[in-house]
Amino acid sequence: MGSAVFEFPLKEKVRNYLRVEQLLGQLKITAKSEHTHLQLVFFEQLFELLDLIERLDLRSDLTKDLEAHEKNLVYWSKHPKIDSTALEQALKTVLTLKQKLKTDRRFGSALKDDKLLSAIRQRFAIPGGACSFDLPNLHFWLQQPLEQRQNEIAQWLETLGLLDDAIAVSLSFIRERGQFVNVVAENGFYQGAAEDKNELIRVKCSVDDGYYPTLSGNKYRYALRFMLFSPQEGQNSAVENDIQFRLAAC
Amino acid sequence: MGSAVFEFPLKEKVRNYLRVEQLLGQLKITAKSEHTHLQLVFFEQLFELLDLIERLDLRSDLTKDLEAHEKNLVYWSKHPKIDSTALEQALKTVLTLKQKLKTDRRFGSALKDDKLLSAIRQRFAIPGGACSFDLPNLHFWLQQPLEQRQNEIAQWLETLGLLDDAIAVSLSFIRERGQFVNVVAENGFYQGAAEDKNELIRVKCSVDDGYYPTLSGNKYRYALRFMLFSPQEGQNSAVENDIQFRLAAC
Repeated sequence: MGSAVFEFPLKEKVRNYLRVEQLLGQLKITAKSEHTHLQLVFFEQLFELLDLIERLDLRSDLTKDLEAHEKNLVYWSKHPKIDSTALEQALKTVLTLKQKLKTDRRFGSALKDDKLLSAIRQRFAIPGGACSFDLPNLHFWLQQPLEQRQNEIAQWLETLGLLDDAIAVSLSFIRERGQFVNVVAENGFYQGAAEDKNELIRVKCSVDDGYYPTLSGNKYRYALRFMLFSPQEGQNSAVENDIQFRLAAC
Repeated sequence: MGSAVFEFPLKEKVRNYLRVEQLLGQLKITAKSEHTHLQLVFFEQLFELLDLIERLDLRSDLTKDLEAHEKNLVYWSKHPKIDSTALEQALKTVLTLKQKLKTDRRFGSALKDDKLLSAIRQRFAIPGGACSFDLPNLHFWLQQPLEQRQNEIAQWLETLGLLDDAIAVSLSFIRERGQFVNVVAENGFYQGAAEDKNELIRVKCSVDDGYYPTLSGNKYRYALRFMLFSPQEGQNSAVENDIQFRLAAC
């Protein structure tokens, strides 16, 4: 039986992390592409990511998170039964990232200075606005040897390396905080009280039975409601029977 | 030596055709993808295309174009030295498309009725706004068997088949109207008078020498100016030497 994890952030901060994670994931795929059409998509997504990160203060959120993780790791390091090598490694990663976040430039600022990127960015905000006649300079760039293009793309992506690493570490700490437990949603409904530190609700459930979870709530309280993907005519779209699933409050 | 064709539309109509052509080209690439990240891009581009075609009256532009082409083909069919089989085939294509344009629904309207597409479309307008927690229904869909997803994508794309065909035929007629001739841009500059029917200027030039063409103008007159892709410090970005290139006024 197929199952999937659905993640629901309870805080704005985690919501932003997940958005950045998804956009970076897409960028890594299109960055490797050999097709000019997909390289155009790379630019589109890069600018979408820049639009997002420029209006957020990710740096201070990430720094606070890393400090909390550091304290946590130091606390656990005093526990006698802990694997100290793995822990030291994790601590080292956190400290390095913290240091880099302090000294590095603002996320995406290196890309803001790039001549080609800043020359073409505006046109990408217009639907279908990045045609060869809108941006003959980009069209010229797309005609350059593939290796050269892929190198430049890799360099652009590299300037986002710190953001990528810091988001990945923060999200993995958040995700590892919760353990999956078996739960039942009676009549397709489950209500939970978020504890103080809960920032992310993870739901692992079947994706073969035509339903999917939705969440409403905030950092105090949340409700999961399972919905039918394609309800029959006249049928309510909410699931009305009991659903077994796994829940992790992280 | 590598060369490329740069196309510059002189009329809004051709500008729109080229935008639609590019978006459809991208859609066909991502439609074949097996990667969920690129399937997300498929949706993004599909909605971008819908945003574009919903605010244009492509149907009447295309119909007028096809009528003009029809007249043209009938005129040539009276010419004794013409290959009548190829011509009849072209005429048949044009007549079929004209008929379909008359009877078919508005472009994209079938997609507007689609439940999944209309449920998720709004979120795609927000940068990074189509995360799994924004659209758990889409996340569910992305977990369905690949074959099923690709079938649905193919069906969505098929509803745009008429648009695709009509744009392709119209653009190929426009492009074939002009023949490439050798021209020199003195000091990197070339000025041309557009004849009555010219709708598209095509420039074929080297892409190895660091310059690319730009065009300003309208349906009466246009100017081509070659620019340096990466001008050195203190250098003007306009090319100042003579450039040999090929020009087709279509």
